[in-house]
Amino acid sequence: MSVVPEFYAPRTFARLAKSTNTLKVTTTTPWNIQIYPKNTSSRHRRSFNTRQYLGRQQQQPSQTNDTRQPSPKHTSKVFKSADDAVADIKDGTTILSAGFGLSGVAETLIDAIRKKGIRDLTVVSNNAGAGEYGLAKLTSTGQISRMIVSFIGNNRSLGQQYHDGRVAIELCPQGTIAERLRAAGAGIPAFFTGTGTSTLIETGEIPIRVGPRDPATGKHAVLEPGRPRETRIFGGRRYLMETALGGDVAIVRAWKVDEAGNCTYGVLMPKAARLAIVEAENIVPVGSLDPDEVDLPSIYIDRICPATSDKHIEKLVLAPSSESDPAGVNEPDGGEAAARNRIARRAALEFKDGMYVNLGVGIPTLAPSFLPASTKVWLQSENGVIGMGPYPRTRGEADPDTINAGKESITLVPGASTFDSAESFGMIRGGHIDVSLLGALQVGAGGDLANYIIPGKAFNGMGGAMDLVSDPDRTKVVVCTYHSDKDGRSKIVDRCDLPLTGKNVVSTIITELGVFQVDRKGGRGLTLTETARGVSVEEIRKRTAATFTVAQDLGTME
Amino acid sequence: MSVVPEFYAPRTFARLAKSTNTLKVTTTTPWNIQIYPKNTSSRHRRSFNTRQYLGRQQQQPSQTNDTRQPSPKHTSKVFKSADDAVADIKDGTTILSAGFGLSGVAETLIDAIRKKGIRDLTVVSNNAGAGEYGLAKLTSTGQISRMIVSFIGNNRSLGQQYHDGRVAIELCPQGTIAERLRAAGAGIPAFFTGTGTSTLIETGEIPIRVGPRDPATGKHAVLEPGRPRETRIFGGRRYLMETALGGDVAIVRAWKVDEAGNCTYGVLMPKAARLAIVEAENIVPVGSLDPDEVDLPSIYIDRICPATSDKHIEKLVLAPSSESDPAGVNEPDGGEAAARNRIARRAALEFKDGMYVNLGVGIPTLAPSFLPASTKVWLQSENGVIGMGPYPRTRGEADPDTINAGKESITLVPGASTFDSAESFGMIRGGHIDVSLLGALQVGAGGDLANYIIPGKAFNGMGGAMDLVSDPDRTKVVVCTYHSDKDGRSKIVDRCDLPLTGKNVVSTIITELGVFQVDRKGGRGLTLTETARGVSVEEIRKRTAATFTVAQDLGTME
Repeated sequence: MSVVPEFYAPRTFARLAKSTNTLKVTTTTPWNIQIYPKNTSSRHRRSFNTRQYLGRQQQQPSQTNDTRQPSPKHTSKVFKSADDAVADIKDGTTILSAGFGLSGVAETLIDAIRKKGIRDLTVVSNNAGAGEYGLAKLTSTGQISRMIVSFIGNNRSLGQQYHDGRVAIELCPQGTIAERLRAAGAGIPAFFTGTGTSTLIETGEIPIRVGPRDPATGKHAVLEPGRPRETRIFGGRRYLMETALGGDVAIVRAWKVDEAGNCTYGVLMPKAARLAIVEAENIVPVGSLDPDEVDLPSIYIDRICPATSDKHIEKLVLAPSSESDPAGVNEPDGGEAAARNRIARRAALEFKDGMYVNLGVGIPTLAPSFLPASTKVWLQSENGVIGMGPYPRTRGEADPDTINAGKESITLVPGASTFDSAESFGMIRGGHIDVSLLGALQVGAGGDLANYIIPGKAFNGMGGAMDLVSDPDRTKVVVCTYHSDKDGRSKIVDRCDLPLTGKNVVSTIITELGVFQVDRKGGRGLTLTETARGVSVEEIRKRTAATFTVAQDLGTME
Repeated sequence: MSVVPEFYAPRTFARLAKSTNTLKVTTTTPWNIQIYPKNTSSRHRRSFNTRQYLGRQQQQPSQTNDTRQPSPKHTSKVFKSADDAVADIKDGTTILSAGFGLSGVAETLIDAIRKKGIRDLTVVSNNAGAGEYGLAKLTSTGQISRMIVSFIGNNRSLGQQYHDGRVAIELCPQGTIAERLRAAGAGIPAFFTGTGTSTLIETGEIPIRVGPRDPATGKHAVLEPGRPRETRIFGGRRYLMETALGGDVAIVRAWKVDEAGNCTYGVLMPKAARLAIVEAENIVPVGSLDPDEVDLPSIYIDRICPATSDKHIEKLVLAPSSESDPAGVNEPDGGEAAARNRIARRAALEFKDGMYVNLGVGIPTLAPSFLPASTKVWLQSENGVIGMGPYPRTRGEADPDTINAGKESITLVPGASTFDSAESFGMIRGGHIDVSLLGALQVGAGGDLANYIIPGKAFNGMGGAMDLVSDPDRTKVVVCTYHSDKDGRSKIVDRCDLPLTGKNVVSTIITELGVFQVDRKGGRGLTLTETARGVSVEEIRKRTAATFTVAQDLGTME
């Protein structure tokens, strides 16, 4: 089985393995024959117009300095099909598979790999597909023997394979995977990150491969333990050292690719692979893309094939048809919806006008519905969006490429921007987000947060949660959660017994019963500052498994 | 004087210092009121059309769920002028000044800083302006007391200020500056890079501030020495640890900026600053930019002002008017032009079809003129271009935003792409460039290269040269140089006595007399493999200050 490579030379493999199995002979661009037309505007690159260029080329060939014809031996990156593009991929290859949820996933190439029956694959990906789509096509056939991944929650059978010891899974925070891939492509062998400090990532205690469960203890044998991280202090904070993560073959999907390999989308994985294959929804001639429109320069791409497999929306969610009560705000009191809305309404008060905020899955997504008219915030979604809007109103309005961190179909508001995962998590780790609203399995009195794993029960992965709480001094972490779990146990505890997402990271806890402020640095624990209307301090005390003080100016939760 | 900050919290300062001195009240975008129109295309974000959106908004306001008006207290990022935008900047501030050469430089904001007379500035920049433009506006007034910079060669008086001990200069390789800035913005306190190993960067022997020259020794006292780097081995190679580099205020220029702060261009510096100010050539309403067109998301920008100062072309170079002999190829033999062309013609043979190559300043830039018709290569320029074309044909065709690494006006070929410096040097360090052609002051028999500094004489800086030779196993380094320097001394030596750009990095040396292959890893020195027509081995031996063996199959340099 292949060992996971730490740091690979991109394109070396491509040079060795360059296939002649091409669709047609294509001209890439010679130096010194044809230049971009100059418009009257001083900003000629921006004002460049493809049709204008092509027209000029056809009309005025004599104006060029060079009358040489493209050589017939000129090699092309364009392959006839995904089957051809993966024809020389061997068992044991390490694949870098792009996409978030089912968005941006190279379904065509995955279909080809499945069809060819390539086995013993190590796959690096953000997640592992869902239902019958994405990487689930390869996990269900047992073609993947090892994954480096941040979230497998939507591929149920993979969790089972892991617990059965049939597949090795190295859980890695989403931002750390992105940064390790970027590092591999950018000649950075290692870097330091605050993500994952004081968690099982630091100690290496998440097993990568487990053996049979011991009937006596109920615990699995650990066949391959996790990898503890080296730590180091910078500016008084502890950071983990993470190493570059490269691979043999990157498979990505892009919307538009020119025949030289310039891509719109499909940005990160190709940089870290020896051989990069893009399936393109549109293959266009060289010169069709404005130089500033290119998201991934051609240098990173070795092979291009047509995208022929459908793309899918993992969770099609439409806006409620009623405009009067879009969030179900006016549901009768007392139910779960009322509790949820009470939390969300209070959470919205954390927002100040102009803030950039990130919303975790679940209750946090409801908060913006309760914003007063005077408060406008920008919603960041860690899959690469600022300016998330509401759910689409119709199925036709939903776009498989436009989803939120919960993989739900969304829309964008005017002023939105999109970017790749390395950029998105740079933004998150760098403390540029003002507030992060998150759900919780448990919150400790010192601000510890547990929200990603229940040993022996739920092995889903942390996704981007560890990144979102990695700089709580700059990004305020607000937990929005029901006070108790489904078994009626308090989620607020003196000390978490579930694995931590982050230590001393939570500043504020909002439940349907009240609001706690956390002295996460001073060690003085929780202070109850607000109670919900009709809820007594006594009731909260009864239902809370952590000690807390009550603020002198105890308020009412609005 | 301010200490150079290593790792700053972006936007914290902005929140504290938010001014109310704004041009007008602007709406940023509320959540859940207006979504992007859905076209029939499945790619709705790409097919988004601004006018269509704005038209719809005007025509169908009743279709939105929200009839709330923008709040009059809504804060805007838009400032009336650069003067207003810098009004609260104090003496001693650390400024991150964007741009390469005079391209992308925030001339308007620099003018405002000069006018306001802010002093004792620490400035992080790629270079230091040229003539009367760019940062030269602030060095000539003595407002800058410290610079972190990769190249000051075009600001002559700054070199004098350094030697007079009036300004501190920390030279840092171009790619390392870019990566340190990116790291500061992305929550990465430190990283490892191969750039600068075995050079004075590693040992910290380039003085940051010098004192008076000792008349006896002719040497300057060192008032502040350089900073030695920690090293570490990964995968058998030695790397330097570099730390994040942030600042107080970023000043950048962008082509188009919406009122929320989304920028096209101006990418890197704002991420690393507490307060980011962009001067915009065009300020457009929110919603005017396609989300995929945004190069820098609004989250990084705090203030926007109009760009009113002119931008400049540092080196306006036009293509020769004669089409028959564009590179002066047919000049009479014997002169410097003939020598230059002989080197360049041979260098062109290093190119294989489809390669990505980087050309240093000088002779290397001539090589593509000698490419056979069957060979097409992509020219990368480290300031952020793949697909460099020839010089523009007319002054009107020259664009200040489109220059090469030598700051000369260039054009782009179809299939070109543009990107920021962090991306460009990731590409370079990551070994994605196939061949790097470079000039030399000296080349050692073991492949050592010296091409950036002559102690006591030329203190220009290394620019991107150390990055370009940082991975010679993946990126072949070919030196193209005259055999002797202007004083007639051999540039090829057994051992360089000038400070190294890189150790054991050169694979091939091409001069007007012949071609040497370098056993840069085996330690068996130089082999002469080709001689120029009419040049004897004996003559080469006489003019070469290094021992070399002669290949059994000695060829003739074409």
